[in-house]
Amino acid sequence: MAPSRAEPIERLVKALRRLPGVGEKTASRLAFFLLSAPESTASELGEAILRLRREVTLCEECFNLTTRSPCEICRDETRSRTQVCVVEEPADLASIESSGVFRGRYHVLGGTLAPLDGVGPEALRVEPLLQRIRAGGVEEVILATNPNPEGEATALYVAERVREYDVGITRIGYGMPIGGDLEYVDSVTVRKSLENRRQFGP
Amino acid sequence: MAPSRAEPIERLVKALRRLPGVGEKTASRLAFFLLSAPESTASELGEAILRLRREVTLCEECFNLTTRSPCEICRDETRSRTQVCVVEEPADLASIESSGVFRGRYHVLGGTLAPLDGVGPEALRVEPLLQRIRAGGVEEVILATNPNPEGEATALYVAERVREYDVGITRIGYGMPIGGDLEYVDSVTVRKSLENRRQFGP
Repeated sequence: MAPSRAEPIERLVKALRRLPGVGEKTASRLAFFLLSAPESTASELGEAILRLRREVTLCEECFNLTTRSPCEICRDETRSRTQVCVVEEPADLASIESSGVFRGRYHVLGGTLAPLDGVGPEALRVEPLLQRIRAGGVEEVILATNPNPEGEATALYVAERVREYDVGITRIGYGMPIGGDLEYVDSVTVRKSLENRRQFGP
Repeated sequence: MAPSRAEPIERLVKALRRLPGVGEKTASRLAFFLLSAPESTASELGEAILRLRREVTLCEECFNLTTRSPCEICRDETRSRTQVCVVEEPADLASIESSGVFRGRYHVLGGTLAPLDGVGPEALRVEPLLQRIRAGGVEEVILATNPNPEGEATALYVAERVREYDVGITRIGYGMPIGGDLEYVDSVTVRKSLENRRQFGP
């Protein structure tokens, strides 16, 4: 780049470009925004990013992100220990949690099987899940990995390992997303939504 | 939000949402990215944002952003003082500078006239521009505000003030953007590109 932009701006643009979906133009726009926004907008963002990694750790029980282990969900004795919902990432847990419908416990695998990228079963937190089952009290393992090839393969693998124990194994339902449009949804989803049809009305 | 996300994550999501074009989903995605990315990705971004406002100041001559005033461009004695290119914002200066075609000086107005938002002429750095002209040596003022209503109004206003002095006043050319498509470009641009047609070939 030309020397027309001060070095701190260049440095920030470079750091912003590492974010997913942020190219040179967006990075420049964000940098100039942060220069012209109120001082607190920039300082609070900068501090929040730095504190994030210092303060956030993994829950020793479910591997959710937390500031204190065990996490709030695992410390909450009103939540049932009989159901364990297995998700790929903490973001998935947050999504299910914000639906407010699940009152059991979680288990974050930390990814999916991806043999082509060299991610084998040992990279996932399956063994700690089996330990939790062996400790007793778990009656149902809900496999809530994503409905894509990697998520399916992972669900199959986890199910195979869990099957050695006397617990139920379920998979989240497939079908039309709420607000979706049959005209635009993919054919696999349409097929699943027909297979999963339920009695309607009295 | 549910207590499923640790407080430092919530704080970062809130700070990220103040960025232009960043909603709840993008902010969450970026926060989880920063948690899983290498430590240096997060720390370098956080530091870059905090250092930005500490280290960047305005050039006392042209009002470009710089770490040291006068800025590199104003200190560069190989650049002509006879031409002053007037732009709205430092980002515009950076764009012209990266084209590599201009070897004169700049003047950053700091915005455009926006009477509806209460931005009058006194909010723009027009007086410092006139001072530079009075100091002597300026032969041409190139008005490079953006080709939109606010930019045009600002160009007209600056031209009116500069006209009191014995200097040339020019406006950047209008026409088709390179890589543009006549089919999709707006009609005003098409008209301007016809008005501004030039002799082609020998």
